[in-house]
Amino acid sequence: MVEKDPITSPLNNSERDITGKALQGTLVDLVDLHLVAKQAHWNVVGSHFREVHLHLDELVDSARGFADDVAERAATIGISPDARAATVAENSGVPKVDAGWKNDREVVEFVAEALSKVIGRLRPRVDETGKTDAVTQDLLISIAAKLEETHWMWQAKLVES
Amino acid sequence: MVEKDPITSPLNNSERDITGKALQGTLVDLVDLHLVAKQAHWNVVGSHFREVHLHLDELVDSARGFADDVAERAATIGISPDARAATVAENSGVPKVDAGWKNDREVVEFVAEALSKVIGRLRPRVDETGKTDAVTQDLLISIAAKLEETHWMWQAKLVES
Amino acid sequence: MVEKDPITSPLNNSERDITGKALQGTLVDLVDLHLVAKQAHWNVVGSHFREVHLHLDELVDSARGFADDVAERAATIGISPDARAATVAENSGVPKVDAGWKNDREVVEFVAEALSKVIGRLRPRVDETGKTDAVTQDLLISIAAKLEETHWMWQAKLVES
Amino acid sequence: MVEKDPITSPLNNSERDITGKALQGTLVDLVDLHLVAKQAHWNVVGSHFREVHLHLDELVDSARGFADDVAERAATIGISPDARAATVAENSGVPKVDAGWKNDREVVEFVAEALSKVIGRLRPRVDETGKTDAVTQDLLISIAAKLEETHWMWQAKLVES
Amino acid sequence: MVEKDPITSPLNNSERDITGKALQGTLVDLVDLHLVAKQAHWNVVGSHFREVHLHLDELVDSARGFADDVAERAATIGISPDARAATVAENSGVPKVDAGWKNDREVVEFVAEALSKVIGRLRPRVDETGKTDAVTQDLLISIAAKLEETHWMWQAKLVES
Amino acid sequence: MVEKDPITSPLNNSERDITGKALQGTLVDLVDLHLVAKQAHWNVVGSHFREVHLHLDELVDSARGFADDVAERAATIGISPDARAATVAENSGVPKVDAGWKNDREVVEFVAEALSKVIGRLRPRVDETGKTDAVTQDLLISIAAKLEETHWMWQAKLVES
Amino acid sequence: MVEKDPITSPLNNSERDITGKALQGTLVDLVDLHLVAKQAHWNVVGSHFREVHLHLDELVDSARGFADDVAERAATIGISPDARAATVAENSGVPKVDAGWKNDREVVEFVAEALSKVIGRLRPRVDETGKTDAVTQDLLISIAAKLEETHWMWQAKLVES
Amino acid sequence: MVEKDPITSPLNNSERDITGKALQGTLVDLVDLHLVAKQAHWNVVGSHFREVHLHLDELVDSARGFADDVAERAATIGISPDARAATVAENSGVPKVDAGWKNDREVVEFVAEALSKVIGRLRPRVDETGKTDAVTQDLLISIAAKLEETHWMWQAKLVES
Amino acid sequence: MVEKDPITSPLNNSERDITGKALQGTLVDLVDLHLVAKQAHWNVVGSHFREVHLHLDELVDSARGFADDVAERAATIGISPDARAATVAENSGVPKVDAGWKNDREVVEFVAEALSKVIGRLRPRVDETGKTDAVTQDLLISIAAKLEETHWMWQAKLVES
Amino acid sequence: MVEKDPITSPLNNSERDITGKALQGTLVDLVDLHLVAKQAHWNVVGSHFREVHLHLDELVDSARGFADDVAERAATIGISPDARAATVAENSGVPKVDAGWKNDREVVEFVAEALSKVIGRLRPRVDETGKTDAVTQDLLISIAAKLEETHWMWQAKLVES
Amino acid sequence: MVEKDPITSPLNNSERDITGKALQGTLVDLVDLHLVAKQAHWNVVGSHFREVHLHLDELVDSARGFADDVAERAATIGISPDARAATVAENSGVPKVDAGWKNDREVVEFVAEALSKVIGRLRPRVDETGKTDAVTQDLLISIAAKLEETHWMWQAKLVES
Amino acid sequence: MVEKDPITSPLNNSERDITGKALQGTLVDLVDLHLVAKQAHWNVVGSHFREVHLHLDELVDSARGFADDVAERAATIGISPDARAATVAENSGVPKVDAGWKNDREVVEFVAEALSKVIGRLRPRVDETGKTDAVTQDLLISIAAKLEETHWMWQAKLVES
Repeated sequence: MVEKDPITSPLNNSERDITGKALQGTLVDLVDLHLVAKQAHWNVVGSHFREVHLHLDELVDSARGFADDVAERAATIGISPDARAATVAENSGVPKVDAGWKNDREVVEFVAEALSKVIGRLRPRVDETGKTDAVTQDLLISIAAKLEETHWMWQAKLVES
Repeated sequence: MVEKDPITSPLNNSERDITGKALQGTLVDLVDLHLVAKQAHWNVVGSHFREVHLHLDELVDSARGFADDVAERAATIGISPDARAATVAENSGVPKVDAGWKNDREVVEFVAEALSKVIGRLRPRVDETGKTDAVTQDLLISIAAKLEETHWMWQAKLVES
Repeated sequence: MVEKDPITSPLNNSERDITGKALQGTLVDLVDLHLVAKQAHWNVVGSHFREVHLHLDELVDSARGFADDVAERAATIGISPDARAATVAENSGVPKVDAGWKNDREVVEFVAEALSKVIGRLRPRVDETGKTDAVTQDLLISIAAKLEETHWMWQAKLVES
Repeated sequence: MVEKDPITSPLNNSERDITGKALQGTLVDLVDLHLVAKQAHWNVVGSHFREVHLHLDELVDSARGFADDVAERAATIGISPDARAATVAENSGVPKVDAGWKNDREVVEFVAEALSKVIGRLRPRVDETGKTDAVTQDLLISIAAKLEETHWMWQAKLVES
Repeated sequence: MVEKDPITSPLNNSERDITGKALQGTLVDLVDLHLVAKQAHWNVVGSHFREVHLHLDELVDSARGFADDVAERAATIGISPDARAATVAENSGVPKVDAGWKNDREVVEFVAEALSKVIGRLRPRVDETGKTDAVTQDLLISIAAKLEETHWMWQAKLVES
Repeated sequence: MVEKDPITSPLNNSERDITGKALQGTLVDLVDLHLVAKQAHWNVVGSHFREVHLHLDELVDSARGFADDVAERAATIGISPDARAATVAENSGVPKVDAGWKNDREVVEFVAEALSKVIGRLRPRVDETGKTDAVTQDLLISIAAKLEETHWMWQAKLVES
Repeated sequence: MVEKDPITSPLNNSERDITGKALQGTLVDLVDLHLVAKQAHWNVVGSHFREVHLHLDELVDSARGFADDVAERAATIGISPDARAATVAENSGVPKVDAGWKNDREVVEFVAEALSKVIGRLRPRVDETGKTDAVTQDLLISIAAKLEETHWMWQAKLVES
Repeated sequence: MVEKDPITSPLNNSERDITGKALQGTLVDLVDLHLVAKQAHWNVVGSHFREVHLHLDELVDSARGFADDVAERAATIGISPDARAATVAENSGVPKVDAGWKNDREVVEFVAEALSKVIGRLRPRVDETGKTDAVTQDLLISIAAKLEETHWMWQAKLVES
Repeated sequence: MVEKDPITSPLNNSERDITGKALQGTLVDLVDLHLVAKQAHWNVVGSHFREVHLHLDELVDSARGFADDVAERAATIGISPDARAATVAENSGVPKVDAGWKNDREVVEFVAEALSKVIGRLRPRVDETGKTDAVTQDLLISIAAKLEETHWMWQAKLVES
Repeated sequence: MVEKDPITSPLNNSERDITGKALQGTLVDLVDLHLVAKQAHWNVVGSHFREVHLHLDELVDSARGFADDVAERAATIGISPDARAATVAENSGVPKVDAGWKNDREVVEFVAEALSKVIGRLRPRVDETGKTDAVTQDLLISIAAKLEETHWMWQAKLVES
Repeated sequence: MVEKDPITSPLNNSERDITGKALQGTLVDLVDLHLVAKQAHWNVVGSHFREVHLHLDELVDSARGFADDVAERAATIGISPDARAATVAENSGVPKVDAGWKNDREVVEFVAEALSKVIGRLRPRVDETGKTDAVTQDLLISIAAKLEETHWMWQAKLVES
Repeated sequence: MVEKDPITSPLNNSERDITGKALQGTLVDLVDLHLVAKQAHWNVVGSHFREVHLHLDELVDSARGFADDVAERAATIGISPDARAATVAENSGVPKVDAGWKNDREVVEFVAEALSKVIGRLRPRVDETGKTDAVTQDLLISIAAKLEETHWMWQAKLVES
């Protein structure tokens, strides 16, 4: 058994708890994002199959990398991160997706919507952590930058050719 | 909406269904394995912290790579794979783990047990698929080889110094 | 002039001949597969031109690599491999393709069909060599794994977007 | 202030002036080509967004590399190269493009036309420099080879799928 | 023809327009900066020729990379970026430079002055976007950091040896 | 079905047809060259086995690379290339080779002769295309340079030690 | 002799002096941090010797890289940086360490304490420079992020196994 | 002192013992194979010196890599591997070789014979382990594949040029 | 059969024999060192398992590399090197080790002792060869440097934490 | 002893002799160019020491690479190349240089003059070989391109700063 | 607390103490050398700024690498190395340098003098350790080789252009 | 014009002159060695052509690298190195070789003899410089080590197969 707070925080308790909540919420969204992106990666069909299949793996890589950064920042400020499957299934802000094959148009729409949802939950956390921890804020800004860029690209595919 | 069976299987229906079930079961175990390994990667403390922290990431990489191989083999034989968070939370054979910090000894014990469970579920699938699809069997053998090797290493750490 | 059987086989004569026939048949199919894949790589047109053009080169690389493996396994068991243009033209199981430009939809259909034919001829050889040479069988299984995966991807593109 | 002709030419004055004019004209076209390709790279939308977005960056890289080669060849023969924005805006042979978002079909058509124009201006310079400087001609031939290959690829996308 | 606003902004309209204006202004300056840096790269002469020639290419690479980041951030927030030659020629804040050969001392002075001008226009945009979009501000800070560092290096060369 | 001439040629019809014929002839020779080189790679025996085996793969790589360049140049000028097995078997200028094992001396002699034949057919095409397309001529010159260099090396091995 | 202020600052005098002081203080701490980390790297003994020895070199690399960034930022804003041995010995905020061999437990405790001290001095500088120079603040935030992450890892090793 | 069976086997006792014996026998052969290959690497002379010298190092690398795989598989199934010099000297199936210089012809003959012996001992182990452990069998098949390929190459050199 | 002394020595006979003896003795020690290090690599267990397992492979790599250098130096001075298993088993100065699993503490002690023994035998050879061959002495010094450094590291692990 | 003309030329005798003379003359100039460039590399002093020292090594690399190309082209057309020290000393067109230290200004002047001489001898060979061997001409053009570019750079350094 | 002499020396006490003193003295000089080189790297101005700035970082890298080698050799022979800031400030043989900006000429003179001093202190240690430890002597010779080479280069810059 | 001794030597005058003479003599031998090795590289024919052709380029690379080291050591001790073609032609100890094609046996014999001569001249210089400059001696020892190793390999090829 480990003592209660083995890691001393560079923040005071209030800052730590607000920041920790923002990080934990973001962690769950990012882990779910890479799970649904992989799900789509395997189940997509349609004439754009290969482009969508490959593009999804870039999203998987981003989401995995950022999830790691976010969880390690939580540990750094003394908050134990939690991204077990059940935790993710209950708390994620990513829209649910049905099982089964999906054609490429459906996948593009789903990814654009999922990114929109995750960004919509991330933006307020950027503001909140701006008041409690500049280091965490800077990390969340870099995540927003990448997710918003990705959102542009998937949206762009929805425009009629 | 996509037609019911968009991908023609190289197997007959019976072979496909038995093989597909073995693959789907393995997929869920491997996705959960990488989630709990990441969970431990972030929450471990103790004098062996860094060794365990780094060793877990090797397990994460193996589990992710094999999950991808298994899911794509399922798609290849015409079975839609499913590794959404809720599916994983419900069907995984990996033991549950509590939230919170864990010392290194607890983590080593947990990983050894988790690998033991996953291997125990994988071995019979090697035999079953040997009767239905030599390609899938060969993939499952390579997964067993790696997981058993990993199991040896984590077990070895449990012996008294 | 070289003596009749300069390379001693690790197999007995009967095993060697059955295994050698499976390897020679596979060699011819794989060499033709890379020739028609290159042919399509150069002659494809259509809005998916670049994706198809690049995806075909991955097939070319796989087919060339496997052809080399198969021919060298034949030599290893004492069977002289033969993949001269005329031998390939006469004995290949790959469907014939007309000369001239092809649009991308035609190419996707052709590749899916060609892979289906080659896989259909390869599967029985996996079984046959299972009785005569475990090493050759293992090689043919790895080829089937890759060709079937590739088949899934080209089939997936045929589904309506 | 620098003296009038600081770099001695390997050519006589007449050869130098004819060759220099061909190089300066090509430089302006290539710099504009990479500017409009980047413009399209940022403004394209449509279901082929990502393929077109990535393909354009290959054109940007080619055009930048060749512009550098051409300008340095001009300097080498004693001619000061000029690729300032205003010079490019006034003298380029690349068709004008409107500001704003473009769908992928429009972009493909525009790039095919732009390449056609630049090639049409380059071919006569290959002939002219063949009479004045074999080194410059060889450089212009290599540029024509790459631009014509690129033109084939963008044209191919215009054919109905 | 593309619909008016194909890309949904993560910002509200007012934030988007202010941020977009800052990005568009920065884009034009950076594109011109790399054009004049290349111009100097080709036209410099003097005993420090090679050092200046190579140092300029580092500036070219920075300016090109940042221009791409800035234009893609504009697209991400729903603003179509414009960096066509004529737009750059009219709107750039980089000082004009005459055609023709320049000795190394003149080039060092020109680059130091050009960087000073571009930085002078960039600093207020960091402040403005701090009120409208933290992601864009973070990008502009990273550009200021690099351009100011570069400015130090070119200024340092102006001190008497 | 694709329209008759989907790719506009940078050449006029007469230039295109003469150039296209030279390219198609070269393509067939190069594809056969790599097939017979692979054939020899697998069937060679003798004390110089390994040196010859490895040296042949360099020839295979050259021939494959050049075949690709030649076929893509044909497509670029609007000529559909054809390198199907039967086309190669009928039209190649490479000498026929018997099936079966060959000792290293026989292989060296055969390769030297094959290269001599292919070069003998290539040289006139350099002259012909010099009148119709400088870009194609430049490509054929680079092929001649490499094949003649290779010919020197295989000839050199024929001299008595 | 060099004139008094050879480098023009992008900041006004007051901003420059406050920012410069924060940078100079950070520089001294970071240089001392890498000196004591190297000292420990060479003098550590104990069963965790190798893990600690290697982990310390990661700290050395971070500290050296950040010291360089900080010193160059100082130069960029017109402040001459000073990290001579005597300056470091007098002004560093890193705790003193005795000469001689240290066991691994002592080293882990010392590094955790040293990081805690350096972070405690860095955090206020993040706030101060937030008022004077956003570029410097962003740099100090990135340093805090890394040092705090490192602090977590060394602290984690202090927990009982 | 370590407890008797510190590593739990994924196999039952009988499977473990049969498999372990096959692995231990293979380990000894492979370690001796790399020792005699190095011995020949250093002692060979003759006109083919360099080719044989280099080719032997490829065999050394294969044998070392496989020995490691085999020993770690033994540990994985709970069997302590033994490859000490005396154990190897007593139990190896590789033919003995005299000390001293050897000409290249002698070396080629020796290597071909040694490989033949090792393969002859390995083949039955493939069959045995097929009944006890599919993972071990798969490993032994991959070793047989490589050693038999290597055997072909050394045999091929024995044929008269 | 090879003539008696096929390689002319750069040394006279007396120098050659003394130097050759020093090299042969060192060769045997180094080959045994890598065999016992591999033995320990496979048989170690305990909480430091992974650190010790990986550290041993660095020793294996050093010992193999130096053994090759030493054997090739022997050949260079005309002395046939001998590192066959039986020769190593009889002549090595490395302490004997029992078969079976070893805990990490036992392994660290054994490696420290083995290195101490090998260094103790190597130091006098540095002096002897200083009188007969400066090239060999320089090689032995570089081996001593590395083995002594390695000895420090394994000793350091024996100190109480 | 080797027979008189062991390598069959792709050229007729007259073409071969003219081309061979051009190649032999170029070979001697290039070998001497790299010898004098190395001489200057070692003997230069002055405030630009390091820039000139490094720039010379780029010239050395170019000259060595081209010398190899030229000599191998000679061999390819059946002409034995000769670049022994005495041949170079007698026949080179590179200006003589005195022994001893040179300041950087002297070196820049010398290199510019040497390149001018070598280019002046190379240009007519481009014309001559245009009549006898297109492959050799193409090679000489590529050499002229590089040497003239290099000449521009060294000339540029001679202009007053 | 660690026992007095935890690392057994390969040297006797007298050899160890003399050698240890030479190593400790060299360590202090090298650490100070890299601190003053970094100091100059940040504070240099003048027309040769960039060349000197980059050249200094090569010296920093050499000095850091050698300091590590020297300190680890000390540990290897049982002597605890000491390179804390205060130790360096008190004992270094590198000349003192004033704070503040330095023009490039001053820096070149200072570096040449600093290297001269360090080399002057190193040469006698080469002789001393020649009597006590051949391994240490060999290390010090390699340091002298590099520092003297560096000294040549900085001296060369002092000669009038 | 440069002053007489621009580079201060770390040696006294007598040591410098003796050491400088040894270095100058070695420089000339090494430069000639790479010229004759290249000469042989281009002129060799025979069944071992490719092996000898490639092996010679390794010798060229060694000789060039060592020549650079030797010349830069000479400069470092204040001696101007001289490796102009005429100096090499007059002073080299490498045996003369006739122009024209050589069969592989002749080349092997020539290289073995040339290496023997160069080594025979180098060994006494190792002894001489041992009395005047330990740094130069260490360099010459490393050259002897490599040349003698190379000599062994070329000699080994002379033994009857």
